[in-house]
Amino acid sequence: MTRGRLVVISGPGGVGKDTVIEALRRQRPRLAYSVSHTTRPARDYERDGEHYYFVSADQFGELLQAGEMIEHARVNGYLYGTSRGPVMEALGEGRDVILKIDVQGAEQVRRSHPDALFIFISPPDMEELLRRRRGRGSESEAQIEARQRLADEEMRWAASYDHVIVNDRVERAAENILELLEGRGAERDAS
Amino acid sequence: MTRGRLVVISGPGGVGKDTVIEALRRQRPRLAYSVSHTTRPARDYERDGEHYYFVSADQFGELLQAGEMIEHARVNGYLYGTSRGPVMEALGEGRDVILKIDVQGAEQVRRSHPDALFIFISPPDMEELLRRRRGRGSESEAQIEARQRLADEEMRWAASYDHVIVNDRVERAAENILELLEGRGAERDAS
Repeated sequence: MTRGRLVVISGPGGVGKDTVIEALRRQRPRLAYSVSHTTRPARDYERDGEHYYFVSADQFGELLQAGEMIEHARVNGYLYGTSRGPVMEALGEGRDVILKIDVQGAEQVRRSHPDALFIFISPPDMEELLRRRRGRGSESEAQIEARQRLADEEMRWAASYDHVIVNDRVERAAENILELLEGRGAERDAS
Repeated sequence: MTRGRLVVISGPGGVGKDTVIEALRRQRPRLAYSVSHTTRPARDYERDGEHYYFVSADQFGELLQAGEMIEHARVNGYLYGTSRGPVMEALGEGRDVILKIDVQGAEQVRRSHPDALFIFISPPDMEELLRRRRGRGSESEAQIEARQRLADEEMRWAASYDHVIVNDRVERAAENILELLEGRGAERDAS
């Protein structure tokens, strides 16, 4: 059996990574999704073990020490990381595994798994991103502005990814990613 | 007052970083030394707060979460990190600060402090390194061999440092580093 491939998906907060990944998994149920660990508190709609594994900083330290993290990063004052076990298991079953991680984490994966597929999801434009985030209504204006600065910074990393996918329509972004995974989408990057 | 400069010192385990740093501090007492945090157990001769701050993985996680670590890395199954506070204080006092850190940590400092001075200490030859480590007598043969593999790997990073100093004689290696710090040693690198 062919071993699965790691698919790294990054992009500024609010760009719609979660909805694109949902669409991807709907379109191709065999895709595995790596649930990250985080020390940040859960938002109202988030469920432990589904959106994230919500852990304490202590627990995070233990996982790091045990070598359980493929990558980890501190973003906005909280720790995020990908645990090794479930990812390796899915790869061993020949399933491709999606990692939704930030640009620092992606850099670590680039070193440990240079054969991974690195995809950056970009908003149609940054103003649109700001509107979406305000529309979400779960953040204060100060939080929104801090995240926007972070997003501007993250956008500068797009060039280091294998492919940049513009999330203008979710289903189409997901299709583009599936084509890349199947190795028949390279010439459509710029679309 | 001119702000101090970060001086990153890396090199394979057993190359004599500690003795070179001792000589440096003896020759120039105003140099500050950043004591790292680690989760590894103390060796017999090591004192807490002097060689390292010995902490638990839990405590390490809390420090990371608090953004207290300038750099951190996992080496041989243990975590190591440099805490921000004391370093920033010494730099603010116009003192140069020595960080003894591994190649992964150095890479993080390169991103956050590109103006730091990056020095790699190399053994006269790798066989010599093995002899020194066996002579130390504090490690099993299996540990020695594992560390040797790590050292071989670390040596490949030497080229990414500003300067490589060969530690043939400790006092001379320290003098070379002081010359680099004073900006009059660049042409003596290859000596």
